[in-house]
Amino acid sequence: MKNDMLTCNMDRMEDKIVTFSKFGDAGHGGITRFSLSEAALQARAEFCNRMKTMGAEIKTDDMANIYAILKGSEDLPGVVMASHLDSVRNGGNYDGVLGVLTAMEVAETIVTEKISHRRPVIVMVWTNEEGSLYPPAMMSSGVVCGKFDKKAMLASKSPEGKTFGEALKKSGYEGDISNRLNPKEYIAMLELHIEQGPVLEAEKKDIGVVEGVVGMVNYRIRTYGQSDHAGTTPMKYRKDALLAAASALKYLHQELDKLDSNLVYTTGEIVCHPCVHTVIPDFVDFSLDARHQDPEVIRQVVKVIENIPKEFDKCRVEYELQWARNTVAYNKELVGFIKKNADAYGYPNMNIYSGAGHDAQYAAEMLPTTMIFVPSKDGHSHCEPEFTPVENCWKGANVLLQTVLDVDRK
Amino acid sequence: MKNDMLTCNMDRMEDKIVTFSKFGDAGHGGITRFSLSEAALQARAEFCNRMKTMGAEIKTDDMANIYAILKGSEDLPGVVMASHLDSVRNGGNYDGVLGVLTAMEVAETIVTEKISHRRPVIVMVWTNEEGSLYPPAMMSSGVVCGKFDKKAMLASKSPEGKTFGEALKKSGYEGDISNRLNPKEYIAMLELHIEQGPVLEAEKKDIGVVEGVVGMVNYRIRTYGQSDHAGTTPMKYRKDALLAAASALKYLHQELDKLDSNLVYTTGEIVCHPCVHTVIPDFVDFSLDARHQDPEVIRQVVKVIENIPKEFDKCRVEYELQWARNTVAYNKELVGFIKKNADAYGYPNMNIYSGAGHDAQYAAEMLPTTMIFVPSKDGHSHCEPEFTPVENCWKGANVLLQTVLDVDRK
Repeated sequence: MKNDMLTCNMDRMEDKIVTFSKFGDAGHGGITRFSLSEAALQARAEFCNRMKTMGAEIKTDDMANIYAILKGSEDLPGVVMASHLDSVRNGGNYDGVLGVLTAMEVAETIVTEKISHRRPVIVMVWTNEEGSLYPPAMMSSGVVCGKFDKKAMLASKSPEGKTFGEALKKSGYEGDISNRLNPKEYIAMLELHIEQGPVLEAEKKDIGVVEGVVGMVNYRIRTYGQSDHAGTTPMKYRKDALLAAASALKYLHQELDKLDSNLVYTTGEIVCHPCVHTVIPDFVDFSLDARHQDPEVIRQVVKVIENIPKEFDKCRVEYELQWARNTVAYNKELVGFIKKNADAYGYPNMNIYSGAGHDAQYAAEMLPTTMIFVPSKDGHSHCEPEFTPVENCWKGANVLLQTVLDVDRK
Repeated sequence: MKNDMLTCNMDRMEDKIVTFSKFGDAGHGGITRFSLSEAALQARAEFCNRMKTMGAEIKTDDMANIYAILKGSEDLPGVVMASHLDSVRNGGNYDGVLGVLTAMEVAETIVTEKISHRRPVIVMVWTNEEGSLYPPAMMSSGVVCGKFDKKAMLASKSPEGKTFGEALKKSGYEGDISNRLNPKEYIAMLELHIEQGPVLEAEKKDIGVVEGVVGMVNYRIRTYGQSDHAGTTPMKYRKDALLAAASALKYLHQELDKLDSNLVYTTGEIVCHPCVHTVIPDFVDFSLDARHQDPEVIRQVVKVIENIPKEFDKCRVEYELQWARNTVAYNKELVGFIKKNADAYGYPNMNIYSGAGHDAQYAAEMLPTTMIFVPSKDGHSHCEPEFTPVENCWKGANVLLQTVLDVDRK
């Protein structure tokens, strides 16, 4: 690290993490902070207060996304640092919120150290990234970027039957549509996030230079057998859909393991009918989620799935594509800034693709965007044991700070 | 068939099947007739009326089991033909009820044809064989034979919270404990039942000569992995409990297939956690039910299960025995009568073991017992497509009739 390089303040970083972990504290190390819930509104109020104290102007758009704006010295498009404050049920204190807290720390450093900047520097909070109470995930970035229909989103219902639209109205954060993130007033969006995987930790890297979000396909594989009594049907007459599903699952693992070693694929969900210990299953349905940055590898995955044998263990096998997502490549210049700044601080780093979805992937369709990853202890995310040491958070904030200043100079 | 052999009446047999299929008619070919429900009480009333018309005396015991007694010419222990009138939800018109209807037809033939008999001939209805509303199955035979505690059974609750005891009180069929089936007043119990499997049909046999009920073991097999994000966890770091469960299931099938070809085993139930398509499963639990008449084969099954590798695909594997049942052998003399009578009528027949449980297996612990199986179309049971052609029902009744007369001569 060059001696003259600016850094954020590690104590302040820690204070932010500790403070925000109280909003929605579930009592055993994690939080439940659904978007626009009381806990989320507490976190938003704390965010707005702190940003106002720094001299930021607060705006919100029609999806309750918050923009805390530190004015620049010139009338130029702004640099946005954005993430989300909401969590999954019994989530941790890092997924999402760390992107907001590091952005706040970057802003506080700029203000405290009186760093001059030409462009507005914006700390932004996306509403309902997790979609835990009101699906889908990445709801407001999807609306702002034109992926989702706003009316349909307002009608999205919680399991208790409350709509997102009602929660939005009640929140006090509903603002004007003209305030939405847009490519005219903003030049770049940066999002810091925990990796949510074990790679950085295993490879002993402090910073993940995120090149993009991997493409994915999601299939259902189904096997059709014959339901009969467990005690009275000789083996030779059986068509056991669960045995066939196990065969199909093993077959797919075997074939997919032959493809690129960076491919990740998951058979995470299984449904068995009738699922009674005394009855031979007649129907099994399992999911297959496969992700890779190279569309050619995804094509190979599709080929494996679509060439699966039509029958296993005398049971018919079918597949159905549920959805697919193309690889999203982040802005090369911004990715280059992240890499340069991590190197300049002397932080071990590596290029990485995001396997999970983030608001940044939608934002990338509108304006130059990239992400910074920091390590996740044991790769945990979406659970209470989620953890990133404060020093890693601080290092991430430092890289974010320098990148904001790089963009400011553009 | 010898020219002078008595037979039951096929038209009367059909009338009985058609009549009883109305009680609890579910509207699409089958019935829902939970024990002591209104539909079951209608069937009981029809049974009692018809038996009274034949001159039978009706008694009930404290579990509402019904005994319709045709007096014999001597004061000797009686011959019981018994089965049940209750069904599972959306069950068929044969499982259970056919045993009662063939017994009624045998009684009607004896009365109509004025066949003299020394012993009382009893048509008996067991209460709550299915245990569909008030578990467990084979409830009252279990109580009468001392397997189940009556107090606990009276407290058994339906999903709506009504107890079996209340239903019993309300039914009007609660009788005296001294009327229970017992080895002093009764010399044999015979139960005709559909096979509930495809063997007789496939082997083109009219009659299954049931030698006993197979022994069984029931295990749970569990795999323990690590839950992580589907998109962010490289394959080499994964511990996928569902992949491990598929491996364990395939391994067990492969090893158990090496044992006796009459062994039946079923992996019918599977539970996966968290069962989300974007999360690697950390826990899977599946059932293994294995049945065979030879305790040695069951011992081999136990050996296979208990020697399962402790790990598949980096996941820990555990097993747990849930319950076991020893093989029940039916009375050899009675089994011999069934065989002899089927042969005498010229009905193709084969010896067979029951894979399912029946009231007869509990009765067998008190007095000489056996069963007659008739074919199940496509092996179906516990479902609406359950079907046995009336000619097969009638043939079964004929064998039952001759066997009652054999026992009468003892």
